[in-house]
Amino acid sequence: MHRSFKASAALLFIFLISCGSARTRVDTIWSARWVVTMDPARRVIENGAVAVNGDHIVDAGTRQEIDAKYTAGDLLDRPSAILTPGLINTHTHAAMSLFRGVADDLKLQEWLEKYIFPAEAKNVDREFVRWGTRLALLEMALSGTTTYTDMYYFENTVAEETKAAGMRGVLGQTIIGFPAPDYKTPQAALAGAESFLEAYGGDALIVPAVAPHAIFTNSDDTLQAARQLADKYQKPLIIHLSETKAENDDSLKQRKKTPTAALDALGLLNGWTVAAHGVWLDDTDLAILKARGTGLAHNPSSNMKLASGIAPVVKILNLAIPMGLGTDGVAGSNNDVDMMEEMDLAAKLQKVATGDPRALPAEQAFAMATITGARALRMDKLIGSLEKGKRADMIMIGLDSPHAAPMYNVYSQLVYALKASDVEDVMVNGRTIVRERKMLTLDVPAVLAKASEYQRQIANSVK
Amino acid sequence: MHRSFKASAALLFIFLISCGSARTRVDTIWSARWVVTMDPARRVIENGAVAVNGDHIVDAGTRQEIDAKYTAGDLLDRPSAILTPGLINTHTHAAMSLFRGVADDLKLQEWLEKYIFPAEAKNVDREFVRWGTRLALLEMALSGTTTYTDMYYFENTVAEETKAAGMRGVLGQTIIGFPAPDYKTPQAALAGAESFLEAYGGDALIVPAVAPHAIFTNSDDTLQAARQLADKYQKPLIIHLSETKAENDDSLKQRKKTPTAALDALGLLNGWTVAAHGVWLDDTDLAILKARGTGLAHNPSSNMKLASGIAPVVKILNLAIPMGLGTDGVAGSNNDVDMMEEMDLAAKLQKVATGDPRALPAEQAFAMATITGARALRMDKLIGSLEKGKRADMIMIGLDSPHAAPMYNVYSQLVYALKASDVEDVMVNGRTIVRERKMLTLDVPAVLAKASEYQRQIANSVK
Repeated sequence: MHRSFKASAALLFIFLISCGSARTRVDTIWSARWVVTMDPARRVIENGAVAVNGDHIVDAGTRQEIDAKYTAGDLLDRPSAILTPGLINTHTHAAMSLFRGVADDLKLQEWLEKYIFPAEAKNVDREFVRWGTRLALLEMALSGTTTYTDMYYFENTVAEETKAAGMRGVLGQTIIGFPAPDYKTPQAALAGAESFLEAYGGDALIVPAVAPHAIFTNSDDTLQAARQLADKYQKPLIIHLSETKAENDDSLKQRKKTPTAALDALGLLNGWTVAAHGVWLDDTDLAILKARGTGLAHNPSSNMKLASGIAPVVKILNLAIPMGLGTDGVAGSNNDVDMMEEMDLAAKLQKVATGDPRALPAEQAFAMATITGARALRMDKLIGSLEKGKRADMIMIGLDSPHAAPMYNVYSQLVYALKASDVEDVMVNGRTIVRERKMLTLDVPAVLAKASEYQRQIANSVK
Repeated sequence: MHRSFKASAALLFIFLISCGSARTRVDTIWSARWVVTMDPARRVIENGAVAVNGDHIVDAGTRQEIDAKYTAGDLLDRPSAILTPGLINTHTHAAMSLFRGVADDLKLQEWLEKYIFPAEAKNVDREFVRWGTRLALLEMALSGTTTYTDMYYFENTVAEETKAAGMRGVLGQTIIGFPAPDYKTPQAALAGAESFLEAYGGDALIVPAVAPHAIFTNSDDTLQAARQLADKYQKPLIIHLSETKAENDDSLKQRKKTPTAALDALGLLNGWTVAAHGVWLDDTDLAILKARGTGLAHNPSSNMKLASGIAPVVKILNLAIPMGLGTDGVAGSNNDVDMMEEMDLAAKLQKVATGDPRALPAEQAFAMATITGARALRMDKLIGSLEKGKRADMIMIGLDSPHAAPMYNVYSQLVYALKASDVEDVMVNGRTIVRERKMLTLDVPAVLAKASEYQRQIANSVK
């Protein structure tokens, strides 16, 4: 008895030791009531967890599985939250957040010529871009966005600020055929873009890009030079495409081609390209974009608010053309950078536009904001889902608010019921940048104080 | 010298005393950076205040004016908030909040027949209505709604709960031509409605109403009996009207009349009437509704999500037909009762539908959620604006969040940028029911616990 007890005690001891030593040490484990992976099997794991080491995901599974295999110093458990991939905003102009609501409910031309262009001419410089980007980064992070695609001026400053805030950005230096706040000629802008591509070519968080504004604001030579520059550095080209009927009509009149066909004839679509809007694409355009592997960004708030039209999203996704979601800029086209709203709006807009309530169901809308958006950016090997080896970009969305109860379907709740204000924690590239709704990487009072300062300056400038 | 000093000191003393005694004592003063009155002059008062006594507003003006005229025991000052009239939800089915997301992205018939009708048959009883209404009241109050129009079953229980929570309700007892959870026949429902009208006829917070579900779910006799009952008690009749094209087509086939013309021929529109949706109204219908003074409820989320269509809101408002905003029920047609979202959506939907970004500007959208909604309910003498003599229904909306900065136009910020989560305080009929985002009149943990209980029961019932 006594001996056998000692023996079994010793065995038990060895067993416990071996169990302990079998567990791998990782940096962080986040666990939640639900883990929505958006992986190829679309696994939704009840009582799930994700193990993170350095900048990447080591494993995702049930909490039991992860606890059995890993230990971590940094543990975050949210028994009443959903853990999802970070949201991907595929089109915005971040710094324009300082123009929030400066000129709404106007005709596009009046809006641009009477307000936005003068306001930009009088106010936009490197410091404006720095503070405007900080304000947008703050709003984006707090609402669950971990990657955003930008197109604006002084993009190297946008990159600095994005890195400092710990966010991931696909950042396009604007090339435009008239004097801009940063560069007075397209040639100067192209040169500036090249040094930007050189500087950030190998960055862990920043994908520098060349962003010729649109076909109608650049010469064909400039457009082709932009393409060559992007290809030289194997970085994306970002462009606005078929946003308005006027753009299409002008192109048909002047070039006897749709904007898509015209860009393709110029070779602009050969290579890594992200095109924003695509409201007025016809079947021939879609065939071209499909053949070229062009990624698209759908901006429902902007297309509705500016009355641009309704993009054929259902048709586009049925053709397996990757189309993500974007907020567009916060200066008339939208008044926030809230991806939770864009998901909801995208789904509802396709339903009413097609007359079919089954169109763009919640799971597909959530995919647009995550893995499909990653495909549109050709970054789906890195981000867009919670899978082993991918970058650790993920968010916790709380289920404690009255509008979150009860819950029957996790995708339905994410797209139609949950709000930006439910986002509790945000991790980008393995680093927690938001914890319990607090931004850890920005001086929030300073950003808000600067926003008020700029408000006074800008309000006077558009009087 | 000495004497004159004493004299002037005495004079100063008398002056101060008289000032003090000149100030009227009131119960409550709320002051904010901006007061958006929605009064006939559409006054927006910078550094404004509202004085409240008992259930009504005594005065609204600049903080200086109000401080000079009134003193109060209960003072709330929000230097970084907007004080507005409480939001008015002109159409919902509150208790259906327990079905949040139970069946989304489905065809209307499949949604109704496979999910909603069975789920209601198996789950809806008086206790379900009690807890579902509590959950909706909680969500509505926290998102700034102070008055809502309901159409459901066991409406006397809805009334009990609405009073207990301190909210204002226009509550319609459903009359429908098939066995319902509360009454098995329309005759029984009419009798039940009558005792409900008797019980709540003189209530300070509740306006009881008769709610024949729709023209296609009731016999003509029942519809006319409902009208007579509403008129007998001088209370509103609430009905769904031209929500879907199918409803219009069937009516044209069976009655050779549009639903509006058919209801009018039956005399249903003679009197106090609130009709929900009005998606498929033609010019003749609008002329009838205008002539009858019918109030309408626009439900953009529901009309988009169920692909019902797009109501001609711009045309309706241009005809000065009062059309407010509604969320509809939280069971497929919507997944929340968030009026801040409906404002934003209503404006954007009219812009894209009309092709004119100037359509339904922010101020008009905010009016739909307040004073125009009050007109639709024929309650604009009581609520909908911050004016002397009106009921003290008002809300504080904070401007501290990143998505609220900077601000150039108060209406633009309210409609396009601010969220339900920015609502800080809510007063209904002079009573504060939400303070610093906390509901004071409901047991929140109990409501959320019950929601989870019902979730398990309901999920099993629709398997």
